[in-house]
Amino acid sequence: METANILFRQLFEKASSTYTYLIADKKTKEAVVIDSVRETAERDINLIRELGLKLVYILETHIHADHVTGAHLLKKATEAKTMVSKSAKISCSDGEFSDGDSIKFGSLTLKCISTPGHTDTCTSFYMEGFVFTGDALMIRACGRTDFQQGSPEVLYDSVKNKLYKLPDTTLVYPAHNYNGLEVSTIGEEKKWNPRLGDSISKENFIEIMKNLKLSYPAQIDVALPANMKCGNLET
Amino acid sequence: METANILFRQLFEKASSTYTYLIADKKTKEAVVIDSVRETAERDINLIRELGLKLVYILETHIHADHVTGAHLLKKATEAKTMVSKSAKISCSDGEFSDGDSIKFGSLTLKCISTPGHTDTCTSFYMEGFVFTGDALMIRACGRTDFQQGSPEVLYDSVKNKLYKLPDTTLVYPAHNYNGLEVSTIGEEKKWNPRLGDSISKENFIEIMKNLKLSYPAQIDVALPANMKCGNLET
Repeated sequence: METANILFRQLFEKASSTYTYLIADKKTKEAVVIDSVRETAERDINLIRELGLKLVYILETHIHADHVTGAHLLKKATEAKTMVSKSAKISCSDGEFSDGDSIKFGSLTLKCISTPGHTDTCTSFYMEGFVFTGDALMIRACGRTDFQQGSPEVLYDSVKNKLYKLPDTTLVYPAHNYNGLEVSTIGEEKKWNPRLGDSISKENFIEIMKNLKLSYPAQIDVALPANMKCGNLET
Repeated sequence: METANILFRQLFEKASSTYTYLIADKKTKEAVVIDSVRETAERDINLIRELGLKLVYILETHIHADHVTGAHLLKKATEAKTMVSKSAKISCSDGEFSDGDSIKFGSLTLKCISTPGHTDTCTSFYMEGFVFTGDALMIRACGRTDFQQGSPEVLYDSVKNKLYKLPDTTLVYPAHNYNGLEVSTIGEEKKWNPRLGDSISKENFIEIMKNLKLSYPAQIDVALPANMKCGNLET
């Protein structure tokens, strides 16, 4: 959602189908990254340099189980601060955020909206016009709820009572998509999300999520411990 | 580049790393698709339906050698008109465009800019603020020039004398990227494109392109004949 003031890049990591976001104030060049991936950290560091940006914060929507964060590598290269949800209770990060907090860089502000359910510490980041939803609300989908203190009841409330209260035109940028879709809107998801559309009751949703029969997350035993250390594999 | 008037979706097809573009007038709902892929045509048809759009044109930046176009399937589902460059001299399409032509849908206009060199009939589509460059100018890259009447001399002139005359802030949306990058700008490519940056002479570029040592395009013997029939595999 590039604008006159905002430099915006959505970046894709193929192996885990993860979207990383780079957002910057075009004037001051101050920037944040959301949900970086270790395998593509060098690409992102290079892009930040080419664009002449000053990375100030490295944010995570949640503690990922499917890939190792690029936070440690990005921090080493840029001296930006790593930031995670306070509720995640991990000690490696430079800063924390909680529900309702504002993360400011240049003239821009991301507002933290606690949206648990995929994990108990998921956060979405909102800026007028768009929202980064991590694995809470995805395009015609949502994150699984059977690991990391996930809960379909809690996720349903996060989406319906928080994300769906945003304007219908708000662009939805998720942490993943597996079908080549990059963006949606709140209005579209209300209408077309097969799990979380307006016509789906909480009971329906819980039933859907309980019957997904998903396999054990392939990367979880590597990714979770690494991400609890902000992606630092050296210690 | 979603705006108040423009609905914009960049869509990705993983096997060929192709970007398809869906652009619509938000008010009238009239839409065009650029560079669709047969494998993801159903996804795109479904999205067009969900968004309530009326597809009017199915455009190709060029006759692709690495994937079969989704044009035939999109046309069957929507009754939109297929459009290709007049210089491609293929008989299956409903309409043609030439350098300088305007393609209008709703209140929006795409201007056709002939940018040969990857093939002899490549066209870029320009709308104020952004340009769809096909395989002419790609992100820190460009299309190969060793098939389909490709020519490094001609491609160099297309990029330097046409695309690089657009404003530096123009967003560049290519037909492919293999590293998870989705968009660039004319200014960035002038500065950082290792083949077509400002410091690269035509002689340098020709030398670079002659020494790429690329393998024979894996899909060309299937894709080219299919795309000469607008992706119709039934005849």
